[in-house]
Amino acid sequence: MPQTDPFTYNTPKKMTDAELARALRLDAAAEIDAMNLYEAHIDATDNEDAKKVLAFIAKDEKEHYALFVELIRRLDPDQAEEMAAAGPKLDTILSSSSGKVPEEAVEAAAESDSAAGNVEERDLLRRSTVGSLLGQLQD
Amino acid sequence: MPQTDPFTYNTPKKMTDAELARALRLDAAAEIDAMNLYEAHIDATDNEDAKKVLAFIAKDEKEHYALFVELIRRLDPDQAEEMAAAGPKLDTILSSSSGKVPEEAVEAAAESDSAAGNVEERDLLRRSTVGSLLGQLQD
Amino acid sequence: MPQTDPFTYNTPKKMTDAELARALRLDAAAEIDAMNLYEAHIDATDNEDAKKVLAFIAKDEKEHYALFVELIRRLDPDQAEEMAAAGPKLDTILSSSSGKVPEEAVEAAAESDSAAGNVEERDLLRRSTVGSLLGQLQD
Amino acid sequence: MPQTDPFTYNTPKKMTDAELARALRLDAAAEIDAMNLYEAHIDATDNEDAKKVLAFIAKDEKEHYALFVELIRRLDPDQAEEMAAAGPKLDTILSSSSGKVPEEAVEAAAESDSAAGNVEERDLLRRSTVGSLLGQLQD
Amino acid sequence: MPQTDPFTYNTPKKMTDAELARALRLDAAAEIDAMNLYEAHIDATDNEDAKKVLAFIAKDEKEHYALFVELIRRLDPDQAEEMAAAGPKLDTILSSSSGKVPEEAVEAAAESDSAAGNVEERDLLRRSTVGSLLGQLQD
Amino acid sequence: MPQTDPFTYNTPKKMTDAELARALRLDAAAEIDAMNLYEAHIDATDNEDAKKVLAFIAKDEKEHYALFVELIRRLDPDQAEEMAAAGPKLDTILSSSSGKVPEEAVEAAAESDSAAGNVEERDLLRRSTVGSLLGQLQD
Amino acid sequence: MPQTDPFTYNTPKKMTDAELARALRLDAAAEIDAMNLYEAHIDATDNEDAKKVLAFIAKDEKEHYALFVELIRRLDPDQAEEMAAAGPKLDTILSSSSGKVPEEAVEAAAESDSAAGNVEERDLLRRSTVGSLLGQLQD
Amino acid sequence: MPQTDPFTYNTPKKMTDAELARALRLDAAAEIDAMNLYEAHIDATDNEDAKKVLAFIAKDEKEHYALFVELIRRLDPDQAEEMAAAGPKLDTILSSSSGKVPEEAVEAAAESDSAAGNVEERDLLRRSTVGSLLGQLQD
Amino acid sequence: MPQTDPFTYNTPKKMTDAELARALRLDAAAEIDAMNLYEAHIDATDNEDAKKVLAFIAKDEKEHYALFVELIRRLDPDQAEEMAAAGPKLDTILSSSSGKVPEEAVEAAAESDSAAGNVEERDLLRRSTVGSLLGQLQD
Amino acid sequence: MPQTDPFTYNTPKKMTDAELARALRLDAAAEIDAMNLYEAHIDATDNEDAKKVLAFIAKDEKEHYALFVELIRRLDPDQAEEMAAAGPKLDTILSSSSGKVPEEAVEAAAESDSAAGNVEERDLLRRSTVGSLLGQLQD
Repeated sequence: MPQTDPFTYNTPKKMTDAELARALRLDAAAEIDAMNLYEAHIDATDNEDAKKVLAFIAKDEKEHYALFVELIRRLDPDQAEEMAAAGPKLDTILSSSSGKVPEEAVEAAAESDSAAGNVEERDLLRRSTVGSLLGQLQD
Repeated sequence: MPQTDPFTYNTPKKMTDAELARALRLDAAAEIDAMNLYEAHIDATDNEDAKKVLAFIAKDEKEHYALFVELIRRLDPDQAEEMAAAGPKLDTILSSSSGKVPEEAVEAAAESDSAAGNVEERDLLRRSTVGSLLGQLQD
Repeated sequence: MPQTDPFTYNTPKKMTDAELARALRLDAAAEIDAMNLYEAHIDATDNEDAKKVLAFIAKDEKEHYALFVELIRRLDPDQAEEMAAAGPKLDTILSSSSGKVPEEAVEAAAESDSAAGNVEERDLLRRSTVGSLLGQLQD
Repeated sequence: MPQTDPFTYNTPKKMTDAELARALRLDAAAEIDAMNLYEAHIDATDNEDAKKVLAFIAKDEKEHYALFVELIRRLDPDQAEEMAAAGPKLDTILSSSSGKVPEEAVEAAAESDSAAGNVEERDLLRRSTVGSLLGQLQD
Repeated sequence: MPQTDPFTYNTPKKMTDAELARALRLDAAAEIDAMNLYEAHIDATDNEDAKKVLAFIAKDEKEHYALFVELIRRLDPDQAEEMAAAGPKLDTILSSSSGKVPEEAVEAAAESDSAAGNVEERDLLRRSTVGSLLGQLQD
Repeated sequence: MPQTDPFTYNTPKKMTDAELARALRLDAAAEIDAMNLYEAHIDATDNEDAKKVLAFIAKDEKEHYALFVELIRRLDPDQAEEMAAAGPKLDTILSSSSGKVPEEAVEAAAESDSAAGNVEERDLLRRSTVGSLLGQLQD
Repeated sequence: MPQTDPFTYNTPKKMTDAELARALRLDAAAEIDAMNLYEAHIDATDNEDAKKVLAFIAKDEKEHYALFVELIRRLDPDQAEEMAAAGPKLDTILSSSSGKVPEEAVEAAAESDSAAGNVEERDLLRRSTVGSLLGQLQD
Repeated sequence: MPQTDPFTYNTPKKMTDAELARALRLDAAAEIDAMNLYEAHIDATDNEDAKKVLAFIAKDEKEHYALFVELIRRLDPDQAEEMAAAGPKLDTILSSSSGKVPEEAVEAAAESDSAAGNVEERDLLRRSTVGSLLGQLQD
Repeated sequence: MPQTDPFTYNTPKKMTDAELARALRLDAAAEIDAMNLYEAHIDATDNEDAKKVLAFIAKDEKEHYALFVELIRRLDPDQAEEMAAAGPKLDTILSSSSGKVPEEAVEAAAESDSAAGNVEERDLLRRSTVGSLLGQLQD
Repeated sequence: MPQTDPFTYNTPKKMTDAELARALRLDAAAEIDAMNLYEAHIDATDNEDAKKVLAFIAKDEKEHYALFVELIRRLDPDQAEEMAAAGPKLDTILSSSSGKVPEEAVEAAAESDSAAGNVEERDLLRRSTVGSLLGQLQD
């Protein structure tokens, strides 16, 4: 018998803006927990009806997650900056031998990519070259 | 620093049907946690943008919850039976003075209601007579 | 030795209506935990006496759960709306190949069903076509 | 975001009898958590509808708790022995000045009571003499 | 490294009577945890010295549990009523085939038993007819 | 004293690809916890040295989070699709009065935006119109 | 609703001797939790009946704790050695100005005390000189 | 991602003496957790360097534990009384066949031992007769 | 009543070297929890005896922490490298206005410092320029 | 469904300096959890892309950890003193046969080392003589 706190969801006070930002990140994390929970259940059952319902809802949680991430991106300039740079940084890490790339190299890649302004083209390329998990995840 | 279990979401084995039924109930409970989390955040902020996004997503979690409840109802005949009887039982409890109605009276109400076949009419009546929380919840 | 919080069940203040709505959902989730706990014990024992007592009580928890769900449905119009639409939505998902139905298709099914007013007939049909878990759950 | 273990309710194996005894005690404890949760909510709301439903269900959890306690009493002779002796022991403790009665005095009271065979009469007496919490609890 | 809350056992305020009732139930549940912990250790060791000490102390926890249950029974009339009726209710459930006895039948059994006033005789009978776990638990 | 599990970080087996996808999402959530922890500490101190170190590290956690989100996006096509559509969906929600936009309207917005191919321009517009939390978060 | 693990008290295997030693220490810690729980409840109530029962039981938990400590002392020579030396070490720490005594000084005190063989006399002296908490604790 | 409470170690107020007594017991329990954690790691590795460091530190935690136990003994007369009586009580339990000695017998042993004043001699005897775990623990 | 896992400290298998490295880091984190727990108690009491004992033991935990950190540094070259560079990096961060120094600047500082070989001199300088918390912490 | 506390990251008040010191230690512990989480995932996957990203980020967490440790060292003189002495103490422990070195010997080693002023030379020697885990950890 765990002790259920009867008042977990009470609202102690209005949040400050900084507290709200943290609350929205927590909301994003809650969506991660939900999609992981449902996909773990999909993995662990052969019941087709359950798999379908779980797949439908897990897809929806990914919409929610994307909405929270987008909202956080708009509200937190530091996070927006890091998201804008994540593509070339990741490319640099993935093209190294061990991943332990010097931080300078990763930053440099982000800056040169930003200078070239080629965000969208890169997106397309990435989709066709990376993806070792795709098969499994598209089931 | 809580200790994060790195392998929480690993899948140990296929679930039996009975384990799946329990997993789906857990999924329903996870939706409750999500909607409570988001509505607590709505309560605790005056930021209109955040309120709108949280309201949109909380509504969607209620769809998910309804889907899980409906699936569970179809898969678990005991639960289906109790759901079919819940309306008149609740009416009996609410029309008593303290709620401590004898179990027999509650069961009798469910049976006579079922015999009369008046499920839908009752639904409409109830909506117009009960609802002390409506104002708050429709905000 | 976990640390037992001696005052978990203290009552800090009267809840607002919105807090009460969340508290009732938490209560519904507590019933889910209880029935899952008892059914897991049923699964894990061959002792007939224990199985009978657990089955009697688990059935009662399903009554409680149904009462909480019904009360929540009456108090939360958004939830009521989603519950009314859950049947045809679930049918649409289950009749698809993978469950990843576009949200529009699911919404459309709910609306056309609602227009036709055939809630009860559908209930009967569903009971006879779905139910791969029934055998297991009726034990 | 807590990490939800997706497989909490999986059944690893059949329990031994000793494990079942512990499981039934855990079930009794779960009922305690439930009644405490619901009574905390009753305390914290003025909503009459919610109070009635919670009172009805909390009463039912007390039936469940009594059933588990009775089953445990029948299955565990040590526990049965302690329950049979609890009345006079408690009387001895309550009639002392600080509660720190020597264990021998408490045991002696239980034995002399048992010799006199007056279990039921004592029950009636106790109900009329003890009960400083009754008013509050009967609300 | 879990984060240890340094002030778990601080006392925020005097409890109301209703809060005290819940606290005493929590105390009863803590005794359950203790006896389960010690009996699990007894099960898992062949060390005779450890087994003896654990058995002595587990027996004492059962005394504590019985004292808490008796105190709760005296303080909570609803619980007392359910405990008085638990014997015949349990008999009814155990003499059924699946445990899923209608609530009315269970209530009726409790009432007729109460009318007959045969509480103590039933206790004796039960002890000789039920008890599939006794062997294991008496070790 | 919480009980510290000494073997939390043991590695039970190689993960399947689906388990790895869930593990990477958990890693993303761990970064959220870290940045929230550090920003809460920044909020709660006036010590300039501590604030600087925490700000430096929190910024780095946002880089990590962006890398995990980007990796997840590449590995999970469903998530990628939802991320591509999140901008116009969010715009639609934010331009509504209560956030409770019909799902169809949100989907339609995403599709028309996708057809117009105007992802980057929209990003710029959004940054200048949304942002009520910016001041607080840029401190 | 926390998730109740239904099988917490299952016994996976016989413990090794070293595992048993750790289990007995855990048992000692469980007694600490129990006495702290009960004394916190005593502190937080004015109900004399409840105070008496809690005081009786808390005293018993202190007996259990003493038994576990004594058993551990006999089974673990390192612990026994440290317990034998704890008196003079504590005296040394308490007679310093800040408690930050060099470890060598503390060790030296233990050794000289041990050489003098004056364990029991010291016990008596200590009781009369230390004890700023006695009043509170003797209630 | 567990949610890390950023302010676990904040100090809400000065403790009362009774709260301090409970805090010191919690500190003793924390030492138990630490020594168990380190000894579990010693058990689970063959790395000699790690084993040595862990053994050195675990020994030190036993010093800490002994200091806390001694301080608690001095501050809590009830605990001191139980510790003084624990030796003969334990002897009585260990010399019985099942450990389920009547409480009176255990109390009597403590009292006669106390009357004889032979605390130290008994200590020596015990060390040479008990100790089935010694071999394992001295590694 | 939390559910106490009776077998938390059981040893499932020998750890691999990588698992041992993680275990030792967990041990370091456990020391952090301990010193935080004890210092929180020091903060929250005016009892001089308790303060002295807690200060003595907290100092010892800092020795343990230093030993674990040193062992980890020797065993994990990546960690050693980061520790060697932490001084100048921290200086760079502290001498900036907001802490959000570009990663390149921080890395450059570490490299130039390393080239100059002036580790120890810097240590002395730092001690005299930083330290706004010293007063508080030296109590 | 665990209950997600919606307001974990709210900021109750400014911390005192002593609370800040504890908060920074908690931050250091959070970095330990993060690196352990990521390295556990590296261990449990053969996916080269995931391994590279996790290795890059885990390296960064070690930078963060080193920064927190360095900051704590500067702010807490007791910790600084213990860190300065950890090298020779560890050497003494590792060169013993069982690790259970008398505390005096360990202290003496630290003092003589400090007198000789040979901190840096020792560092180099250690790196070449210790390191049984290096191979594994450098992967």
